[in-house]
Order: sequence, then C-alpha cells, then structure tokens
Amino acid sequence: LARIANDTMANLVELHPDRFAGFVAALPLNNPQAALQEADRAVDQLHAAGIQVYTSSNGRPVDNPNILAVFELMASKNRPVWLHPIRAMTSPDYPNESVSKYDLWWALGWPYESALSMGRLVFSGIFDRYPDLKIITHHVGGIIPMVEGRLDTGLEMLGTRVIPGQEHAVQTPLRARPIDAFRKFYADTASFGSRASIECGRSFFGLNRIVFATDMPFDPEQGPGSIRETLRAIGEMDLAQEERHRILAGTARTLLPSNP
Amino acid sequence: LARIANDTMANLVELHPDRFAGFVAALPLNNPQAALQEADRAVDQLHAAGIQVYTSSNGRPVDNPNILAVFELMASKNRPVWLHPIRAMTSPDYPNESVSKYDLWWALGWPYESALSMGRLVFSGIFDRYPDLKIITHHVGGIIPMVEGRLDTGLEMLGTRVIPGQEHAVQTPLRARPIDAFRKFYADTASFGSRASIECGRSFFGLNRIVFATDMPFDPEQGPGSIRETLRAIGEMDLAQEERHRILAGTARTLLPSNP
Repeated sequence: LARIANDTMANLVELHPDRFAGFVAALPLNNPQAALQEADRAVDQLHAAGIQVYTSSNGRPVDNPNILAVFELMASKNRPVWLHPIRAMTSPDYPNESVSKYDLWWALGWPYESALSMGRLVFSGIFDRYPDLKIITHHVGGIIPMVEGRLDTGLEMLGTRVIPGQEHAVQTPLRARPIDAFRKFYADTASFGSRASIECGRSFFGLNRIVFATDMPFDPEQGPGSIRETLRAIGEMDLAQEERHRILAGTARTLLPSNP
Repeated sequence: LARIANDTMANLVELHPDRFAGFVAALPLNNPQAALQEADRAVDQLHAAGIQVYTSSNGRPVDNPNILAVFELMASKNRPVWLHPIRAMTSPDYPNESVSKYDLWWALGWPYESALSMGRLVFSGIFDRYPDLKIITHHVGGIIPMVEGRLDTGLEMLGTRVIPGQEHAVQTPLRARPIDAFRKFYADTASFGSRASIECGRSFFGLNRIVFATDMPFDPEQGPGSIRETLRAIGEMDLAQEERHRILAGTARTLLPSNP
C-alpha cells in the first residue's frame, strides 16, 4: 500500500510540477525493515522530499532501534523527517473510562504525543550522532515550547526524581544538555491560526526553524480557514519582511531538495 | 491527616502574620464527603485563603460529581481553588513499558494532566453555572495556552471526530464556546523562569488572570533559582509598571480574602 501511494504521489508531482513542489513518502512502519526499504526507494528512485513518521507505531516509541534506523537513513541522505502525532479516541484519559471524552485525545493528546516522541528522540542521543538531522514537528512542536523551563533547569535534575530500583529509566546516551537537543527540531506553523502558539515556538526553536504549514483541510471551512488564519497570524507577528519570508518559504527551500 | 495539616498551617499564619499572608487548605480527596467537610471547616473556621485540589484523585477525574461538589462549595464561598497536577513515574508512556522514561511523566505529563483536568471542568459546564468561580492553574495553565487554536476552531468541530456508537463521550452541558470557558481559568507564573511560557499564558488568559508563583524550592538551587528566574522573566516582559505589579501582587489581592 505504501508503495502504491508513493508511486502515485511521485506521478502527480511529475504530471503537475506547477502545482506540487514535491511529496513526502508514506512508510509501512508496522514493518520497520520494509519501511527502511521503502524510505530508501522513495528518496532515491521517486525523489521524495522526505518521509513522514508517526510518533509511535503499533505502540512502539520512535526510539525503538528499528524505527530509529529510519531516522538514521534520512540523516545519511540529508532529507527531512516529518513527525506526525498519532492517538485515538480509544485511548482513555482516566482509568474506568473506555474512551477519551470531549475530543481531548485530539485537542490535547496529539500535541502531547508529539512532545513525548520528541523527548524519546532527544534522550536516544540521535542529535549527538547526527547533528544535522532535520526533523519537522507538527503543530509548532506540540507542547514543547510551552514547557521550556521544565526542559531546561527541570531536566537538569534528571535522576533526582527516580523511584529506587528504576534508575534504568533515566539512563541515556545523550551528551548534550536536554534543552539544547530539544531546540534542534524544526516546527511547523499549523496552529489553527494561533499567533501566540507560533510566537512561543519561534522563541523556543528560533526563527530559522519555523516553517509554514496550515493543517488544511481540517478546519470548519474544510481548508480555506486554516490557510487564511495561519497567514493572518504570521502577518501579525512583529517580523521584518525578510524574516516573514523565511517562515513562509525561505527555510523550506533549505530543507527540501532543490532538484526533486 | 488533612485536619492536622490545616490546623498547623492556620497556627503558623496566626503566629507569623509578617511572614505568611495566608494558607491554602489540603483535602482528603480520596474521601470526597470528608473533603467537602474539611474545605468548609478550613475556610470558615481556620480562615484558609482557599483549597488545593489535585487534577485527579485515585484515578477519578475532577468532573466526578463528588469532586465537583468541592469546587461548587468554593464558588459559594467566593474562595479560589488551586489546581495541582498529579502523575507518577509509574504511569508508562507506551505499552510494553512499566514506567515513564527520562522524567517525561514530570516534564510533559504534569502540564498535560493540568490541561486534561481543565478540559473536564470546562465540559462539565461549571463556568456556566458559576461564572465567578476562581480556579488558579499551575505552570501557566499547563499546555492550554499553547493549543489555543485547537481549543478554538478545533473544538468547534466537537462531534465530527467521534467513533460511531461513542457519541455519549462528546455530550456536554456546556453552553459557552469551549474556548471562552478555557479562558476563565487563572494561571500562575511557575515556569522555571520561561518568559515565553508566561507570555503565551498572558496572551491566552489575559493579563488580569496571571498571578505570580515560582514553584520554589523545586529548582537545582532548591529555591532561590526559581524565585530569581521567575522575577527576571516577568521583568523582561514588555509591561507597564502597573501591569507588572498586577501580576506580582495586584490580582492576588483580589483573589485572596482581605481579612484572613
């Protein structure tokens, strides 16, 4: 199925170069070995701009060695990985409940899942090993920018909160300070038009790591609203014209292959 | 135990009025009926400034009717409720794991728990019934300010993401727009000195709902660091002197009883 999807996407890009700057490959993450092969094929043969990876697959976190291998392959090819949250209504928020109520699995759970997977990537030490690895996180980095202080001096105290006998759970190969590794992600602007979220993300990741995205068509207008409101939010930010252009296009051009 | 704690706190406030402006009562939330009685006693007899409630108790969410009754009691007494997150390392983040790794239960899980409980309070419709209820959330409202857009147009689409047969999980007595109810919480500045987090919270809740707090002594210096860095962050914000004073003291004076 992933091969069919990627072949079709590549074909669309080839047929309509005036409409599509490229495509991002889908992977069968349920089978990491096949995912690795398909990532290789999609980039080398289909000229995919990069790949999309979910924040977990069949319950496996992204720092599972077989999933990490996909990130490492993309680092070797200098192609970005788009990280997308995954969580369903069937994950209840409290014991004795069978589903998540009031769409909280979506409204809060998705940005939380993004952050959890970013945490697992950070503590895998992957940015020590591949300092130039490019991971583009969705929804302005999930909740990461909002918890800056907890990731900074808070995680400096890693090891002081551990239950006796569970020390293995805080052992990490990470050599950098956690906060410095968290700042290595890229973050897109998909925020349903929240200027405050984008500002918070800009402050955390820095202007050069914020890239335009809208989450179209998942708004009440099925598309136009999220584009319009995201452009409005970025337009209202106190930025020089050149800085705004970097968010809207400039940084994306540095991330995407120039000759897809 | 809660009675002993509250009696002792009340005694400290009485003995050292130059050092303590008041105290916030602890409650035996494992026994909601006893919690209700102790909240009543603490405010009326011990002159507690308010009460602290955890974001869940024995796995029960805050919109459990017996826990909601505690909030309703405080609304009737016009005293604030301090909402504190609760979550332990023993809550794993992924299946097939027995504990949460790398302190993510604390760094990410706590602000997420705050947000979940705020969501449950919002959809209980408690702010429709008690528009002047004062709930002071910790850590700048957890992750709520960062997901503004998801709570706005995102939750306008409540009901469109539901699994067939699970419609009960999105049924709510809430009459207000969800985003308007989320903006009724107060948020403290405890962020380990993150100006960006406090700015994001200020944008979401409005200046008049941000109150000073530091999380002392839970920083690497065991206290002085969190006070100094939180004051620095607020000092760097682009605020008039009168606005800064409102965060540091003015709003707290309107929330706390004047003659404890």
